[in-house]
Amino acid sequence: MASAHPADLTVGADLTVEADLIVGVDLGGTKILATVVRPDGTIIGREKRLTKAEKGSDTVLKRIVKAIRDAISVAEVTLDDIRAVGIGVPGPTDTKSGIVHEAPNLAWSETPVAAILSEQLGVPVYVGNDTNLCTLAEFDLGAGRGATSMIGVFIGTGIGGGLILNGDLLDGATQAAGEIGHMIIRIGGPRCGCGRHGCTEALASRLAIEHRVMSMIEKGRDSMIQDLLAEKKKKNEIDQRRIRSQMLAKAYTANDAIVRRAVDRSAWYVGVALAGAVHLINPEQIVVGGGLVEAIGQPYVDKVTQSIHEQTFDISHRNLKVTQAQLGDDAGVLGAVCLVRRRLTPTTP
Amino acid sequence: MASAHPADLTVGADLTVEADLIVGVDLGGTKILATVVRPDGTIIGREKRLTKAEKGSDTVLKRIVKAIRDAISVAEVTLDDIRAVGIGVPGPTDTKSGIVHEAPNLAWSETPVAAILSEQLGVPVYVGNDTNLCTLAEFDLGAGRGATSMIGVFIGTGIGGGLILNGDLLDGATQAAGEIGHMIIRIGGPRCGCGRHGCTEALASRLAIEHRVMSMIEKGRDSMIQDLLAEKKKKNEIDQRRIRSQMLAKAYTANDAIVRRAVDRSAWYVGVALAGAVHLINPEQIVVGGGLVEAIGQPYVDKVTQSIHEQTFDISHRNLKVTQAQLGDDAGVLGAVCLVRRRLTPTTP
Repeated sequence: MASAHPADLTVGADLTVEADLIVGVDLGGTKILATVVRPDGTIIGREKRLTKAEKGSDTVLKRIVKAIRDAISVAEVTLDDIRAVGIGVPGPTDTKSGIVHEAPNLAWSETPVAAILSEQLGVPVYVGNDTNLCTLAEFDLGAGRGATSMIGVFIGTGIGGGLILNGDLLDGATQAAGEIGHMIIRIGGPRCGCGRHGCTEALASRLAIEHRVMSMIEKGRDSMIQDLLAEKKKKNEIDQRRIRSQMLAKAYTANDAIVRRAVDRSAWYVGVALAGAVHLINPEQIVVGGGLVEAIGQPYVDKVTQSIHEQTFDISHRNLKVTQAQLGDDAGVLGAVCLVRRRLTPTTP
Repeated sequence: MASAHPADLTVGADLTVEADLIVGVDLGGTKILATVVRPDGTIIGREKRLTKAEKGSDTVLKRIVKAIRDAISVAEVTLDDIRAVGIGVPGPTDTKSGIVHEAPNLAWSETPVAAILSEQLGVPVYVGNDTNLCTLAEFDLGAGRGATSMIGVFIGTGIGGGLILNGDLLDGATQAAGEIGHMIIRIGGPRCGCGRHGCTEALASRLAIEHRVMSMIEKGRDSMIQDLLAEKKKKNEIDQRRIRSQMLAKAYTANDAIVRRAVDRSAWYVGVALAGAVHLINPEQIVVGGGLVEAIGQPYVDKVTQSIHEQTFDISHRNLKVTQAQLGDDAGVLGAVCLVRRRLTPTTP
């Protein structure tokens, strides 16, 4: 059995040979975030650019390299100071081979990302699934420190997650573990982006909340969201019908009945899926994060906790910690850094 | 990472010092099965008796001791030939301390079973959860040999299960892992024995099938089950309204429409719950067993497989093996023996 945690944040001691900086990259469907990170977890340079997935994988890979080089410039260091690069990708990824099995948002399939980028950059490159790496970051550096087993769940436009068991990230037989958003909790429920019905994501994501709120408004119910959408229109913003997490948070705090109901239901649904996960793997801790949770905060986590308690046995949740994620938007890049740290200094049994 | 399998069936080499036999006990709510097992897995003596749970834990513990002594007599050996005893119990159990946290069918709570029985018998006693141990047995000796990660699910009056990850049984933080039967797959669904609604067990157990078939018959639909129940009545059997798995199998094979529909739906529901588990842990193999599955056989496993494939991504089930359990009613006692074998010869990292 592996030890739970690598000596936290002290891994730098092993890395201060010559190059001790790590580059962490969070590759999303719309944007790339590249950072330069010190062994102690401090980010000393960051660079954001659009992914432009529609231009194909060659373009995206070039844009990643460019983002990395720019972040290195911002940090006022050179590639020689970089020990390795870690990248989080939105899709099942083999962390051992560095091959991305598939990334629907990028139209990638069996793409050897680590091999391509390490050749272009001349440093080792490690690749992992994005929400798995967010989970790893919360475990090594954030809300999950001190736990042995943990589930991470991240709620935004979609719902993703990851599992830590015996102190290690669970990849799964085909590197597809942690897909909590596609656990079915209501057979015959609403259609999910994946084409199936009743997935947790279809019931509880920010998009699901948006659908619910808009449908109530269309039915003639009043909501503060109408004013917030009107403001957007006045400012001629893009996505004029999109209800962002910040708008939901504003209305939630102002006790808007429609938004309260929709957000609380989302939290309750997430709790039902997590209850299934608790029945199955009985973890020590659950960390709840993502854009929606960051915006709403503790009230969302409290509702999730209540729902888990309602749907599980006393013995399964007796000592269960359910906490809000701590790393925010940086979880992705820091998770990529944690993957690198663990690869460079494997835990000893 | 632990090695997947202890050298299969050769563990006896380590045990043939003096006493090399292991006693495996399966403690159920209604009956106790005690067996004497050779290092190679052969059962050389067995004894069955009623549990009499209503008489309290002292009585049950005495009856276990008696069943063990009788099984030893049947095997024509003595207690001196017994290296250790393993017991599977229906409830969350700490395999390390040998304490049964709770066993609702037995009205047990924090019962130190290993300590009590090892004092009475004078040999080491190991205790584990029954369906976890059935899973372990299928992994070490049955359908799961050769796998690294596996889910076991057992469908009968209720639905239980267990998880093998990295070659080890997953106990969970409070030894409550593997409760696949209580994963909720239809929010607002039928009430479960646990008091919640829409659990897999409430939708897919033999009892759920029985309810569905009886309700169709009460609505005036014809089924072969009516004849089979009439036979039972004629013979004045107990439980005259209970539809046993064998009766379901008979009607299923005879293409009885009502039974076909109810059994196929059960398999489909089990597949939905397993799909959730596959999304979450992405195992190599799933082993499906229990009284209902033994009776119906491969057609049930095929329906489960189809349902899993429908509800998961191609990458998650691409290499997934879904197979029928091989050990039948002996899975419980053999699992208890496997627990003992693993305790006596721990796997090396």
